[in-house]
Amino acid sequence: MGASAKQTAKQTIEQLAVKPLTGVRILDLTHAYSGPFCTMHLADHGATVIKLEIPGKGDQSRNWGPFKNGASGYYAYVNRNKYGLTLNLKEEKGKEIFKKLIREVDVVCENFRVGTMEKMGLGYDVLKEINPQLIYASISGFGLEGPEATQPSYDVVSQAMGGLMSMTGEKGHIFKVGPAIADNYSGTYLSLAIVMALYQKERTGLGRRVDVSMLDTIFSILETGAISYTLNGKIAEPAGNRDPEIAPFDVLKAKDGSFAIACGTQKFWKSLCQVMNRPELAENPHFIDNQARCDHYLDELKPLLEEWSSQHTLAELETWMTGAGIPFGRICNTKEACESEIIKRRHMLWQIDDPAFGETISVPGTPMKIHGCADQAERPAPQLGQHTDAILHDLLHLDMDAIKNLHETNVI
Amino acid sequence: MGASAKQTAKQTIEQLAVKPLTGVRILDLTHAYSGPFCTMHLADHGATVIKLEIPGKGDQSRNWGPFKNGASGYYAYVNRNKYGLTLNLKEEKGKEIFKKLIREVDVVCENFRVGTMEKMGLGYDVLKEINPQLIYASISGFGLEGPEATQPSYDVVSQAMGGLMSMTGEKGHIFKVGPAIADNYSGTYLSLAIVMALYQKERTGLGRRVDVSMLDTIFSILETGAISYTLNGKIAEPAGNRDPEIAPFDVLKAKDGSFAIACGTQKFWKSLCQVMNRPELAENPHFIDNQARCDHYLDELKPLLEEWSSQHTLAELETWMTGAGIPFGRICNTKEACESEIIKRRHMLWQIDDPAFGETISVPGTPMKIHGCADQAERPAPQLGQHTDAILHDLLHLDMDAIKNLHETNVI
Repeated sequence: MGASAKQTAKQTIEQLAVKPLTGVRILDLTHAYSGPFCTMHLADHGATVIKLEIPGKGDQSRNWGPFKNGASGYYAYVNRNKYGLTLNLKEEKGKEIFKKLIREVDVVCENFRVGTMEKMGLGYDVLKEINPQLIYASISGFGLEGPEATQPSYDVVSQAMGGLMSMTGEKGHIFKVGPAIADNYSGTYLSLAIVMALYQKERTGLGRRVDVSMLDTIFSILETGAISYTLNGKIAEPAGNRDPEIAPFDVLKAKDGSFAIACGTQKFWKSLCQVMNRPELAENPHFIDNQARCDHYLDELKPLLEEWSSQHTLAELETWMTGAGIPFGRICNTKEACESEIIKRRHMLWQIDDPAFGETISVPGTPMKIHGCADQAERPAPQLGQHTDAILHDLLHLDMDAIKNLHETNVI
Repeated sequence: MGASAKQTAKQTIEQLAVKPLTGVRILDLTHAYSGPFCTMHLADHGATVIKLEIPGKGDQSRNWGPFKNGASGYYAYVNRNKYGLTLNLKEEKGKEIFKKLIREVDVVCENFRVGTMEKMGLGYDVLKEINPQLIYASISGFGLEGPEATQPSYDVVSQAMGGLMSMTGEKGHIFKVGPAIADNYSGTYLSLAIVMALYQKERTGLGRRVDVSMLDTIFSILETGAISYTLNGKIAEPAGNRDPEIAPFDVLKAKDGSFAIACGTQKFWKSLCQVMNRPELAENPHFIDNQARCDHYLDELKPLLEEWSSQHTLAELETWMTGAGIPFGRICNTKEACESEIIKRRHMLWQIDDPAFGETISVPGTPMKIHGCADQAERPAPQLGQHTDAILHDLLHLDMDAIKNLHETNVI
């Protein structure tokens, strides 16, 4: 390789190392889980996220477990890579500083109760006059208008109303998804809406109002749930761990636990018959194709499969099934998931040296792998107001006397 | 308002109507659910998504229910707003056309088994030589490298291995999320990774390889699941419909069904005591604060709440609770969710006049509300190869004789 080619290759590696959202500034008023999960994605991929908190109080998630050494793992997890600013938006002086900051950022993001920003005189109509290119992004329970808009909402309310609970579990025993998926999924959708708006802004200079509701979010992920009703009037039933349209696609018993299996093609089914040493099953008219297997699944095929699988250990079944290329998964608890080789290899646990804990903590990393970029946290979650002085000095050019005065009057 | 101000306002409305990804070209090789859900988001927001399918066969989801008038609602739902191209990538001539198309697009997106594109000679290393600015995006079960990479995966396998199932349901009865959330969430993450890369490309001209795995996706949404283990070695237990850290936050019985309630603050709890006409409960040491309520929830508070709530109808409870500003949700089935006023008001059901059905169908719209843009589908999902000729003519400038020849030789 010549010197010039080497130079090009080196430049490319350096270019690739720059995270995609480097240079984007986000003023982040979000708290709890949904909003911070949104801005976490943006911070993880290079955006400068300035987390705005109430002086002396801060994000409620600072009081949420799990704790270690007196610090909140919840807060530390979803706020890594962000910068911390305290500002009292109820004070006139605080509003004034906020409006100055609005001129310096690309995005403002909030998940207050609908109407809160307007009550403080900081609604979109006000802020877009200050910065017409601003992207103003909100998460709400039920959208920004209508009789429900100002009702408070929580994850379980959205999972219930959106139809997801009705499809999860089994008849008479339906469940919400354990983790707060209405929160994190609405946050993820909002981050996508924000980056789409940033893309358009980069091309045209256009500012935008974008919003995502938790209820819409849940309704959007029902897969066949909504369309079975809108097309055929059929109300989805919870189907346990089966896919009612594919067989075998279920959780089955082994000697020492349970496992997931998914024979989504005829090839996988035939391989399973081989693994069971029952090649004749593939020719049985009751199991000859997917439709036949679905029709005879609960009364015939499942008992037959479990009669076999329950005689063998998970380790045996895993070796045989993955060896035969059949989709197979152990039911991992959180310990097993965290300790799995593949999670480690994919850098799905980031080590963060966080002074709030006085030690290195381990939290889930980003699932969006941007090749060439460092796949690790750049900095721990901010302590309350950690970067206030630096932000006011660097972005607004306030001098140290002015900043001192703001501290003394509890504006920051 | 003067003529000039009116002119400005009018321009702004026109500018806002342009969807954010207008002008972006995506060559979409995805099939089934995860990949098409990814590119659906991009097409919904203005990208020109060219869906590439195998001539005479097409996406497997064309054979997935629910059906109406012989057409697949599944396919129609997640492929609206896209254009259809057939191309045989196993033929030399097909590969040649594919490579020419690569020069004309911003993004290529695929969810084949890992190694498939490389086997066809169309891996990233080949394509980036043709178009160095290309964004090449993949969804996989387990990532692109390592012993599991080429193993097939399905949604339930990811939900099982990633730890989500272990947290959903109750002890001894854990469940997968009904709809295929590992699929749709990995698709959503990939769309976010793609738009971040597009943003960087717009600024710097840089091409990118991005990838998302279904297992990483599930691991990333466990909320406290992973960190409770990594911080304190605590393995998360499924908690039914409760949030173990907040009380009352659960699904409770009414006279005629069940409902979700979430008293995430002291204020909500006090309001609930008022609604129950039991203000003294708020002063009871067993219920005095959130920690006390959590400690006495299952044995004392829940029975007490249900003794009251089970005497009243959902309609009564809803009126009282929402009237008092307490977070409340009915457990809606898919019919109730589809027919709810709020889903309609938020345009969460799009009407699409789809010739494959010979009628207008109704499918979930986008949860990402970009104000100023039309919140509706622009076109139905493509028929197999519907836009092949137009795409080859417009993008590659092939003449009609050349296109005819490609049809005759089954390349397209």
